[in-house]
Amino acid sequence: MNLIIDVGNSAVKSAVFQDAKLLRSYVFSFEKFSEKFQQIKKEHPKITFSMLSSVIKDTSEIEKMLKKETELFVLGENTKLPFKNKYASPQTLGKDRLALVAAGAKEYKNKNLLIIDAGTCITFDFKNDKDEYLGGAISPGLHMRLKALHNFTAKLPLVELEENVALIGNSTQESILSGVLNGVLAELDGIIDRYRADYKYLTIILTGGDTQILSKRVKNGIFANPNFLLKGLNYILEFNKTQ
Amino acid sequence: MNLIIDVGNSAVKSAVFQDAKLLRSYVFSFEKFSEKFQQIKKEHPKITFSMLSSVIKDTSEIEKMLKKETELFVLGENTKLPFKNKYASPQTLGKDRLALVAAGAKEYKNKNLLIIDAGTCITFDFKNDKDEYLGGAISPGLHMRLKALHNFTAKLPLVELEENVALIGNSTQESILSGVLNGVLAELDGIIDRYRADYKYLTIILTGGDTQILSKRVKNGIFANPNFLLKGLNYILEFNKTQ
Repeated sequence: MNLIIDVGNSAVKSAVFQDAKLLRSYVFSFEKFSEKFQQIKKEHPKITFSMLSSVIKDTSEIEKMLKKETELFVLGENTKLPFKNKYASPQTLGKDRLALVAAGAKEYKNKNLLIIDAGTCITFDFKNDKDEYLGGAISPGLHMRLKALHNFTAKLPLVELEENVALIGNSTQESILSGVLNGVLAELDGIIDRYRADYKYLTIILTGGDTQILSKRVKNGIFANPNFLLKGLNYILEFNKTQ
Repeated sequence: MNLIIDVGNSAVKSAVFQDAKLLRSYVFSFEKFSEKFQQIKKEHPKITFSMLSSVIKDTSEIEKMLKKETELFVLGENTKLPFKNKYASPQTLGKDRLALVAAGAKEYKNKNLLIIDAGTCITFDFKNDKDEYLGGAISPGLHMRLKALHNFTAKLPLVELEENVALIGNSTQESILSGVLNGVLAELDGIIDRYRADYKYLTIILTGGDTQILSKRVKNGIFANPNFLLKGLNYILEFNKTQ
């Protein structure tokens, strides 16, 4: 069994895999790692391998814990990847984006694929039908936009995300909700349209914490796949075990 | 002559008007107000009226200075407006948005009008062909997005805006630039399309500090009008003088 750990900007996402099959997934705060790790180990004593990916700076404490009880792989510059990386600066490429493209290379081999991960940031990652990763974009996520409008202005309030939002907001709260939710939806559809203009046969995956609120509102046909990143990390682990 | 002052989240924008004609405009930091006010007065000794609009909290010092040397109008809840305000919470409506709609009511009377102000925030404001203001949206501006990606993540750098940005960024810097600039452009075009679906005859004004970088890239037909807000404040001042 494999324990997969993705340390993101807002939370730790983790999952236990039996070969390629996801058995259970977990979301918890970075501070709770030790406690959660013990719980997961107790629930799945057959975990022998682990894979860590992080977009934050210092994960040495976590690595120590994982090394003690599992064979640990840390996603880094020297990890072998199941696709050709054409990114100009692979050393600064977010590990989360590598994992997404790995999942894409496995599940959508030889297809043009745009992967949109809507979390703290919204990342766009494109792999072509030769399984070459070309790069993409990074844009602020839904909650980051709400936080920025409050933190970087003198008077705007911090607004909580809501599901039903009119185009024309007629209060400050509704104006912010429209600007953020309708804004992100227009951005997603517009960016997808631009990729479609360049790549006629294009598959689109939507994943990340905001998949649910966005997927039913995006006009373009997309596949919602909330655990895509964890699947990618598991695939990279399996790929590196056998090297 | 009228001195018009708009205190925004990032800067003070000011202009001197002779009746409806803009003679000169100025942009400076809030801290420089006293010095700039003396300079403007020297250049235009015939200023007798002033109009102040602010989206920040305390402008009492500025008001004192202006009152001493001009007849001051402060844009507030009791200011008479040249349009019907259907906003549900007029007491929390940004003064900048009121001024934009006032300019719209004067220059585009009895037309459906969408005003997009791209500054610290991107505001959308809609006035229908009965000159009723219905509200709109508030979304983070270009620079706010760049700042948020850096401030609210562990590893992303602070990137400076650039004019030429590819769809598929192939470095972290280019990915951020694509996410922010192409993201805002897709958002603007997508939101305009949604308004157009509801209002067949629609005029669109683009104004604010980022007018130039955005106007030549937006696909929809828009009118770029960088001083729309100052013109609106001058119109409100003229409208209130005669009440």
